Amino acid sequence: MQTLQVDLGHSQYRITIGSGCLGDRALLASEIPGSGLMIVTNTTVARLYLAKLRASLDGRNVSECILPDGEQHKTLQTAGWVFDELVGKKINRDGVVLALGGGVVGDIAGFAAACYQRGIGCVQIPTTLLAQVDSSVGGKTGVNHSGGKNLIGAFHQPLAVIADTDTLSTLPDRELSAGLAEVIKYGCIADPQFLDWLDSNMEELRGRDVEALTYAIHRSCEIKAAIVGEDEREQGRRAILNFGHTFGHAIEAATDFERYLHGEAVALGMLMAADFSRELGLIDAAAQQRIDGLLRRAGLPTEAPKVGAARALALMRMDKKVLSGKVRLVLLERLGSGIVVSKYPQRALETTLREHFA
Amino acid sequence: MQTLQVDLGHSQYRITIGSGCLGDRALLASEIPGSGLMIVTNTTVARLYLAKLRASLDGRNVSECILPDGEQHKTLQTAGWVFDELVGKKINRDGVVLALGGGVVGDIAGFAAACYQRGIGCVQIPTTLLAQVDSSVGGKTGVNHSGGKNLIGAFHQPLAVIADTDTLSTLPDRELSAGLAEVIKYGCIADPQFLDWLDSNMEELRGRDVEALTYAIHRSCEIKAAIVGEDEREQGRRAILNFGHTFGHAIEAATDFERYLHGEAVALGMLMAADFSRELGLIDAAAQQRIDGLLRRAGLPTEAPKVGAARALALMRMDKKVLSGKVRLVLLERLGSGIVVSKYPQRALETTLREHFA
Repeated sequence: MQTLQVDLGHSQYRITIGSGCLGDRALLASEIPGSGLMIVTNTTVARLYLAKLRASLDGRNVSECILPDGEQHKTLQTAGWVFDELVGKKINRDGVVLALGGGVVGDIAGFAAACYQRGIGCVQIPTTLLAQVDSSVGGKTGVNHSGGKNLIGAFHQPLAVIADTDTLSTLPDRELSAGLAEVIKYGCIADPQFLDWLDSNMEELRGRDVEALTYAIHRSCEIKAAIVGEDEREQGRRAILNFGHTFGHAIEAATDFERYLHGEAVALGMLMAADFSRELGLIDAAAQQRIDGLLRRAGLPTEAPKVGAARALALMRMDKKVLSGKVRLVLLERLGSGIVVSKYPQRALETTLREHFA
Repeated sequence: MQTLQVDLGHSQYRITIGSGCLGDRALLASEIPGSGLMIVTNTTVARLYLAKLRASLDGRNVSECILPDGEQHKTLQTAGWVFDELVGKKINRDGVVLALGGGVVGDIAGFAAACYQRGIGCVQIPTTLLAQVDSSVGGKTGVNHSGGKNLIGAFHQPLAVIADTDTLSTLPDRELSAGLAEVIKYGCIADPQFLDWLDSNMEELRGRDVEALTYAIHRSCEIKAAIVGEDEREQGRRAILNFGHTFGHAIEAATDFERYLHGEAVALGMLMAADFSRELGLIDAAAQQRIDGLLRRAGLPTEAPKVGAARALALMRMDKKVLSGKVRLVLLERLGSGIVVSKYPQRALETTLREHFA
């Protein structure tokens, strides 16, 4: 079991990563404070892990709120159901929400905790690789609006994050790969040595080797925590965590958020961002091909859907990271170092978009 | 025109108080930043002041969202309408919500600004005395849940507060008095000299003398800002702002939030809190009678509804300020100084409740 301390000044918390966390009563007792606990999860995860978590919390005051599974339920209305449960179970200001599930559960439950009584504690217990390396860390919570993803939300840091790598054993291969996209992202934007390590350990990761997964999650969280620590509210540098996300967002939106998992769209977006970085002379073709090779070996798609360059550009402009109509992009100044760029030749961007989206 | 600087460390903002603010283009230009502005107001206030505010913002990108009037609309659903408008008008991260109205509008609009894109700016433009002296300052925002008031919300400090005392000319007498209840509260908990001033100026205040109102609002905001500055998230001392509110909450709940305005219930609650303070030997009967006299002269009710002591106690226990089932009360250690008390003889509280609620 590995731990990692996140320090944001006003808020400190520990991330615990490893096999067997969910069954570790002592760990859960020390990491989860509060007198009234509300487990928020979904139907799929409840079937797999709810009984185990409840058993480990035996003797405490625990309620549960089981949501339908799927991104289409990540709405203000669903957050409203969580509020109903919190009120109904008389959860007080010293109550704690336990978010047991993937990114969708973590985002809804975290948002509900952020707003209930103007903020109660939340412990993230992510059960997908994507949630373990990304969404459970950093305090971004929220729900979607028909006009866009995550348009309603809050910054609300968890009290603790508990990532049990055993839960990855039940994760479909496709979702494991989607999580690896974000892992590869951290290497691209912040750590060339981690890219080397990923090159050497991709088979172990896809084979769900606990040691390899634990290291990959730990290093990913470490990189994310360091960046969030510098810029919690995304005034500047935190934006580099969006490497691949602006292109990826356009891909998800153009395919009605149905064809690709988020991580898959991010993988395609990273390829485009790498390609555009090469187009601007920031990285060379060899660097771009290394990213492409890693994503392929992680089982991720590498060919964008042919939705048309004009449509893709319009959708990129609608992304909420756009400031005053200007599309800022996260590019690579070299392999292992991301930068936010808002000045670039529009023509060059259009060329890249045409190459990928036709 | 008077100004007051609020400094919370991570957030500073100015409160401007006086006659003619809404028509002062230069003031609004300097106090309201942002490229896209969304005025959130209600049908009543829109009829009176929307055109004036829009005229003063001429030349800027301004949209509006007009909500139905009334506390019964302070719901998550109404906040959802505000989100719809913000998305529909493509308000970006540098957009700003202008809350034009009383406490209900300020709470909903502030909450929507807190959550939209995880937080955009909000300028509070309160048009009732209660909102000018209380709800617009301090960053508490939120909506009600059927299970309780303000159960869903956020701490979100405004970018600025602009209190135009001219708007009080259209305020019904009863609402003016309700606002005076909170003004008297500040004297009770923090400033005996302010109580003297109120004693000498009550006729002017009820006669809507601009100079008297401006001073009363300024001093009230100053006291509130100082307390919030010490304890933004109500971990401790901020709770003294709830003087009269726990008793008042029970009165509102017992009468279905229909019979009394919030300020009226707080006035009754302050009388009870003063009476209980006397019962515990903290203040003498003369102090209690001074508060009673001030509230009477402010046009406020001084006789509680006979809802029964047992029911009142049960409702007090449901207040969200209750920690782990224990009712903390704000009492007066002397006239002009509030304290939070969690240890007191339960019998004594029951005696006080029986005296007032029968």
